[in-house]
Amino acid sequence: MSANKSRAELLAELEDWAKGLSNDILKLKEPILEIPSRTLSNTIWDEKNKILKLGSEKIHRKFLDVKEARRFMQTMLMLRLIVEAMRADVFPTIRDLYYNGKHTINFNFLGRKYRENTWDEQSESNAVIEDIEVATNILREEMGVSADVKGKIVGPIIVRSQGYELDASKFGETALSLPVNVDALEIVKVEANYVLVVEKDAIFQRLVREKFWSQEGAILITAKGMPDRATRRFVRRLNEEHKLPVYVLTDGDPYGWYIYSVYKSGSIKLSYESERLATPNAKFLGLTATDIDSYKISDNYVIAANDRDVKRAQELLRYPWFQKPEWTREINLFLKKKKKVEIEALSTHGLKFLHDYLRDKIRGSKFID
Amino acid sequence: MSANKSRAELLAELEDWAKGLSNDILKLKEPILEIPSRTLSNTIWDEKNKILKLGSEKIHRKFLDVKEARRFMQTMLMLRLIVEAMRADVFPTIRDLYYNGKHTINFNFLGRKYRENTWDEQSESNAVIEDIEVATNILREEMGVSADVKGKIVGPIIVRSQGYELDASKFGETALSLPVNVDALEIVKVEANYVLVVEKDAIFQRLVREKFWSQEGAILITAKGMPDRATRRFVRRLNEEHKLPVYVLTDGDPYGWYIYSVYKSGSIKLSYESERLATPNAKFLGLTATDIDSYKISDNYVIAANDRDVKRAQELLRYPWFQKPEWTREINLFLKKKKKVEIEALSTHGLKFLHDYLRDKIRGSKFID
Repeated sequence: MSANKSRAELLAELEDWAKGLSNDILKLKEPILEIPSRTLSNTIWDEKNKILKLGSEKIHRKFLDVKEARRFMQTMLMLRLIVEAMRADVFPTIRDLYYNGKHTINFNFLGRKYRENTWDEQSESNAVIEDIEVATNILREEMGVSADVKGKIVGPIIVRSQGYELDASKFGETALSLPVNVDALEIVKVEANYVLVVEKDAIFQRLVREKFWSQEGAILITAKGMPDRATRRFVRRLNEEHKLPVYVLTDGDPYGWYIYSVYKSGSIKLSYESERLATPNAKFLGLTATDIDSYKISDNYVIAANDRDVKRAQELLRYPWFQKPEWTREINLFLKKKKKVEIEALSTHGLKFLHDYLRDKIRGSKFID
Repeated sequence: MSANKSRAELLAELEDWAKGLSNDILKLKEPILEIPSRTLSNTIWDEKNKILKLGSEKIHRKFLDVKEARRFMQTMLMLRLIVEAMRADVFPTIRDLYYNGKHTINFNFLGRKYRENTWDEQSESNAVIEDIEVATNILREEMGVSADVKGKIVGPIIVRSQGYELDASKFGETALSLPVNVDALEIVKVEANYVLVVEKDAIFQRLVREKFWSQEGAILITAKGMPDRATRRFVRRLNEEHKLPVYVLTDGDPYGWYIYSVYKSGSIKLSYESERLATPNAKFLGLTATDIDSYKISDNYVIAANDRDVKRAQELLRYPWFQKPEWTREINLFLKKKKKVEIEALSTHGLKFLHDYLRDKIRGSKFID
């Protein structure tokens, strides 16, 4: 973890890594990259810490191996692009890096001419960025790589970015958009009772305008559906550094439940990041399959599940991080009734019922851990 | 236009509209709703003002017409829900309103029993909200209806929301998320040279982190692709109230060009809103089809257009608001070469070339009006 290192220190670490490799070459030793393996088989469920993470398998990428020379070249090319960007104080996007490094290499071998592209697809250049992240333990955010940012927040919290203090309790009907690199965001002061993560942006807007957060002393966060890295990291920091309970509110369907699990346990694709991104003690507020009965949501407001929902629910049942009696009961109830329900269906009991529901769940500890 | 009316005044207007109808009923007069027609045939291109807008056709929705009674009922139901929400100071989403009004009406007619849903799909309840907007000239944002908000800004501008001043030049690497109702956002002070609207969020993040906006004295705005109503309205206000030039930067493909035209001229679906949302003198900075040659973007960074791109370009050629020599030339060049190019392809000339490109286009007035 390198949360508190300066940009200059991080740059020096990347340069040192490269120097080690070039020293090997100068000593006529074969350069080898040792990189934790990011395959599905090396993704494990850490029962004790309740997160998805990478196992101990490592790959040794050898320059003098014809199967690996291309990927070795790509890794060195990407490292050069990133180091150059950091030196020049620019903040390329992952797509910039793809374009910036894309070119054709012409070479002769045994009398024949060859042409080879450095990479053809962005999936190749992205994979190399991830390799560099796991190999160096420095995140692309810390390297200054830009990406889409989805998260926004309001509530009793003051943060500082590049010397500017921002008090998220004084935003009126606007909100604070998170930066790409939330580790560079200093949390100056927090006076909140809990963090409420809301799947849907429009529900976030409602709760802002209806002053729910100030009545509750809650920090409200949304990432509009599946969360990005910055939002997950920020939720984690609020929980870890400030011991705030984290509650997640999503639609009552397998997609919503999966979103919750990404906040809580991490995702398969980014399992090497869970140790920084996941919030293992995040609680699920709802909506659950049981809520349909317990909150008397009329049939009129309930939606029939489609085949994709059913398939997704069956997948959830297979994930080790859903192996809890509360979750298997909910998912099996869903599979039996084949009914899903949206947050907005709570307005069947009037437009203010959402507030009552949230308070009832939190005060009564009616959440799933 | 009702930008400066209080919530109480707007509520009174809606109540008065409803009272007029109930008075008709009490006088045994048939209640009739007069609503501007939102059909494609009533959407016209206003050449003088350079916007898409509604024509003068009106529909007269009669309660005692068996074909229109259902829609009449829906309109009254929605009006009741909105008025109740305003009185209770809640801010439902359009989906809340759909659920909140959805129920089954049981009735007997000529000895037979009937069951009818108030509405079956959200498209029905949404259409009724739009009817109420055009009939009353009050926007759903002003009625307190919540929706997803995509826009975020940074730059030399101070706004005020519910008494809180927010200086968007002091956000560091974060940004200010726009509220649902940007007309309630007071623009306190603007010291900008221009507004730069950026299609892509990651490019917005780059320009924030690279301090492009402070070097240029520019307000940066993104809405991540197709803009929402709030972002379009805010861009319009900056241009109209503060006379700021507005430049739009998108990918060089028909989708990006259409996004520009939505900022500039409005959209077909929301043509009744163009007079508030469109910015007729917004300029298109790029990327254009010509840019591929004039900025020497190598073939390696250019993407072959697919059938959908071609179809979309042919559609653009038919829209009256693309009937300008500059645009027909660009679109025809695109159709001839069948090549598109992304903003990020500019990094072919180095990661700082994006800045040079933007300055060259703005300083040299190399934009399309």
